[in-house]
Amino acid sequence: MERTEEPRIVLCTAPDAPVARRLADGLVERRLAACVNLVPGITSVYRWDGAIQADEEILLVIKTVAGRVPQIEAYLADEHPYDCPECVALEVSKVEAAYLAWLRRSVADGT
Amino acid sequence: MERTEEPRIVLCTAPDAPVARRLADGLVERRLAACVNLVPGITSVYRWDGAIQADEEILLVIKTVAGRVPQIEAYLADEHPYDCPECVALEVSKVEAAYLAWLRRSVADGT
Amino acid sequence: MERTEEPRIVLCTAPDAPVARRLADGLVERRLAACVNLVPGITSVYRWDGAIQADEEILLVIKTVAGRVPQIEAYLADEHPYDCPECVALEVSKVEAAYLAWLRRSVADGT
Repeated sequence: MERTEEPRIVLCTAPDAPVARRLADGLVERRLAACVNLVPGITSVYRWDGAIQADEEILLVIKTVAGRVPQIEAYLADEHPYDCPECVALEVSKVEAAYLAWLRRSVADGT
Repeated sequence: MERTEEPRIVLCTAPDAPVARRLADGLVERRLAACVNLVPGITSVYRWDGAIQADEEILLVIKTVAGRVPQIEAYLADEHPYDCPECVALEVSKVEAAYLAWLRRSVADGT
Repeated sequence: MERTEEPRIVLCTAPDAPVARRLADGLVERRLAACVNLVPGITSVYRWDGAIQADEEILLVIKTVAGRVPQIEAYLADEHPYDCPECVALEVSKVEAAYLAWLRRSVADGT
């Protein structure tokens, strides 16, 4: 099977619910993702300018295929308010067959 | 090591807390999972009948081994209210040794 | 590329928000993680002493590199209140380039 059709789970974060929902809608509308789960109320701890920061964020769990990941990166570069948004694609070992078929149909061009 | 004992994190979603908890209890009772984290209050954005939908769901993060994934798929096919529930198994690169031993004991037959 | 620099997403759970935040601060301060997302309000279902248990927990989603995972395990062994804390490192297939560079800088020694 062409690698581009291999399923991927992509993680991203957004500063608040409106931005998270706008990004999720955009990803699904453009068939870059079959589904996006928005996980609310997370706290992100990280270092910035030498100090530990803790910001409220929303976690996006994006269900897609390997071939769409570069386009998701480009979409986030254009649409995400951060200069350097997280976009981490996880390896998937197995997906239930019927769900995988739906996932692939959802991100196929022109369907 | 036989692949079936390799650890896996499986993602699934459920429509509400009672269904999520019933599924989680069933997976642990049947030793199909060592542990299930239920992540509340997520919003899932997806396309259905040509329109963007947004539903409230619960995310299940299922800790198991590769050999149990087909049985988890079968269990969800029987017990999940959706026709086509998500069941996505993520590749794991490393697990702390004591936790891995506990995980494997928890999903071993007849223990 | 040396494997130790390969990105990893590590999952761990903590009993409550103060412990989760202390662990997250410690991981970022020691440059064992670039960022830690704390996901609140999860319910963890598991078997203990033969009975199904359900505890409230916080899920930690730790962004790091493969070379730091053994040190994260050692840190959790010292600092986590559980005898056997979860520490599961997920395989990552791709990370957006600028974010990956930031991630690596954040966990590099002496930066």
